[in-house]
Amino acid sequence: MAVTYELIKTCKQTGARLGKIHTPHGSFDTPMFMPVGTLATVKAMSPEELKEIGSGIILSNTYHLFLRPGHEIVKEAGGLHKFMNWDQAILTDSGGFQVFSLSNLRKIREEGVEFRSHLNGEKLFLSPEKATEIQNALGADIIMAFDECPPFPAEYQYVKDSLERTTRWAKRCLEAHANPDRQALFGIVQGGMYKDLRIESAQQLLDLNFPGYAIGGLSVGESADLMYEMLEHTVPILPQNKPRYLMGVGAPENLVEGVMRGIDMFDCVLPTRIARNGTMMTSKGKLVIRNAEYARDFRTVDENCQCKVCQNYSRAYIRHLIKCNEIFGFRLTTYHNLYYLINLMKQIRQAIAEDRLADFQKEFYAMRS
Amino acid sequence: MAVTYELIKTCKQTGARLGKIHTPHGSFDTPMFMPVGTLATVKAMSPEELKEIGSGIILSNTYHLFLRPGHEIVKEAGGLHKFMNWDQAILTDSGGFQVFSLSNLRKIREEGVEFRSHLNGEKLFLSPEKATEIQNALGADIIMAFDECPPFPAEYQYVKDSLERTTRWAKRCLEAHANPDRQALFGIVQGGMYKDLRIESAQQLLDLNFPGYAIGGLSVGESADLMYEMLEHTVPILPQNKPRYLMGVGAPENLVEGVMRGIDMFDCVLPTRIARNGTMMTSKGKLVIRNAEYARDFRTVDENCQCKVCQNYSRAYIRHLIKCNEIFGFRLTTYHNLYYLINLMKQIRQAIAEDRLADFQKEFYAMRS
Ligand SMILES: [Zn+2]
Ligand SMILES: [Zn+2]
Repeated sequence: MAVTYELIKTCKQTGARLGKIHTPHGSFDTPMFMPVGTLATVKAMSPEELKEIGSGIILSNTYHLFLRPGHEIVKEAGGLHKFMNWDQAILTDSGGFQVFSLSNLRKIREEGVEFRSHLNGEKLFLSPEKATEIQNALGADIIMAFDECPPFPAEYQYVKDSLERTTRWAKRCLEAHANPDRQALFGIVQGGMYKDLRIESAQQLLDLNFPGYAIGGLSVGESADLMYEMLEHTVPILPQNKPRYLMGVGAPENLVEGVMRGIDMFDCVLPTRIARNGTMMTSKGKLVIRNAEYARDFRTVDENCQCKVCQNYSRAYIRHLIKCNEIFGFRLTTYHNLYYLINLMKQIRQAIAEDRLADFQKEFYAMRS
Repeated sequence: MAVTYELIKTCKQTGARLGKIHTPHGSFDTPMFMPVGTLATVKAMSPEELKEIGSGIILSNTYHLFLRPGHEIVKEAGGLHKFMNWDQAILTDSGGFQVFSLSNLRKIREEGVEFRSHLNGEKLFLSPEKATEIQNALGADIIMAFDECPPFPAEYQYVKDSLERTTRWAKRCLEAHANPDRQALFGIVQGGMYKDLRIESAQQLLDLNFPGYAIGGLSVGESADLMYEMLEHTVPILPQNKPRYLMGVGAPENLVEGVMRGIDMFDCVLPTRIARNGTMMTSKGKLVIRNAEYARDFRTVDENCQCKVCQNYSRAYIRHLIKCNEIFGFRLTTYHNLYYLINLMKQIRQAIAEDRLADFQKEFYAMRS
């Protein structure tokens, strides 16, 4: 098995899991947040900085790498790890989410999806086999099945047909997968906001015995409560001895709540995207550093943060850089936001270890109110 | 004296100077190239990275900091060093060069220059007193007199009138300067491409006894040979015991030739600007990394470079990042270009120490042909 999950303990207050995931490129503690490196780079960050903040795993995107530079080039370079100079774990998504987001540019068939490149309109095709072939070429430690992520809201029958096709596609991915000894292929549970469909999807995928399971199709516009409800109906069905990955979720409160419902892995562009827009995550909530009120504010961004940004730079300086579109400003906001989230996960792991995650949750919300 | 120059030795082959400049924020070896940090940041670089590559001094811009964030904010922050987290030497230019570049937006009078902000058209005024006041607020170790840099080509009489006004302005800067014990004010020799005017300007400024001298108004469109000729007529008049700074020059061959003609300090946006445009400086000349020929080139950028970019990343990866406008691409090209130039200066210093700068010059050109 390329990837294994080691359950260390569960929190007595909440049932949340403390664990370790072992991959061909090292192990990382869970629950973990994975920074997104869309185009073989976590925007604005260096690999050294990612290690500094403790990202044991990062994510990269099949769709984007398929378009640029092309998976053959990455393969010729010796794979994604070597290409981008990252020797720890990598997860690649399947491209499904990106392709289905191009709603006006794509046509879904049983065989796969025809779509047009968002860059130049070129007609392209992705299928379970093609997405798997690309991910085999990229060589990430964890790769994802090619799925359909239905829009929200969506009709019951649409979601049902879609999840059943996603299961058929998942099977084709398993069959196409060339390197199960070096790359773990995870299945993706769909089912929209319908509890019975979530359960149906999970059970169908469990029969295929994937080494890990993701929960897709959440954080697509529904309320947080509805997302939590879906988790509560899906996660308990998933096996205890395999990783559980909630896709596309990265708001601090969603991470806390996701862990309490049994999730081990998260990813989201949120911390890096809002960073480049001048918004910083802090222990007291969001801080929009571009705002005029910070022009003469020489305090640190987050007095509770130990990151090198908070140790060395003032709000006024960071605001100045962001207002001037300076690259170093994007570096500082991105570094801090990722540090904040990865440190939040570390605090969560500590709370699980001490059986006090429910107490931690209370303190977390109290700080932000 | 805020800043002193220590002459270590002169090259027996060329007369080039090996020295050390001592400032209130540490000493640096000369000849030295100073990276430009226009808006209180060397674009794409962190202070730690600048130290890694051995920048003992960086430059920042009065005009730009006057507009954003404003010198009062920098002063409130505790000065430029503290604002930008840089504890080594800083030099600020006077804003003269930038203001005179706004040719359609400015009006020159004896009192000073009225101009409009390139950002929002706001009417502003800079004078010798104001430029010095701003630089006193910023707190750099070396500050520059407010001068006029005439365009090229320019009529003899225009240049003569201009340099004489520049001398009167230099005197006013000296009188306005509030912190001569902590900040060294350098005079700027002008005189366009007229040898006798260069000499006249230098002699007038020598009478004012500045702690260092810059040569301005070169690298403004004239041929390299003409620039070298002007240096040959200007530098020998300057005192042996003070630093000599050639402004706005950063092409590798110009650095070699400048040092051979007695220059100690250089600055230029060239290495950082072309880096963001995808051009890298190498021991064999320029390498335009965005070109298609590098898409599958998995070799290092410059096999003779020991920088961490050349140790860890391929041309194909850097090309991919630059083509995708990825911030990390700009980081890698900028880091390498600055490393290349600062390492070139180190090699030059070594050659002077060994009395073989003329030999080094030959090897330098042979590698690039
Ligand atoms: Zn921080
Ligand atoms: Zn290099």
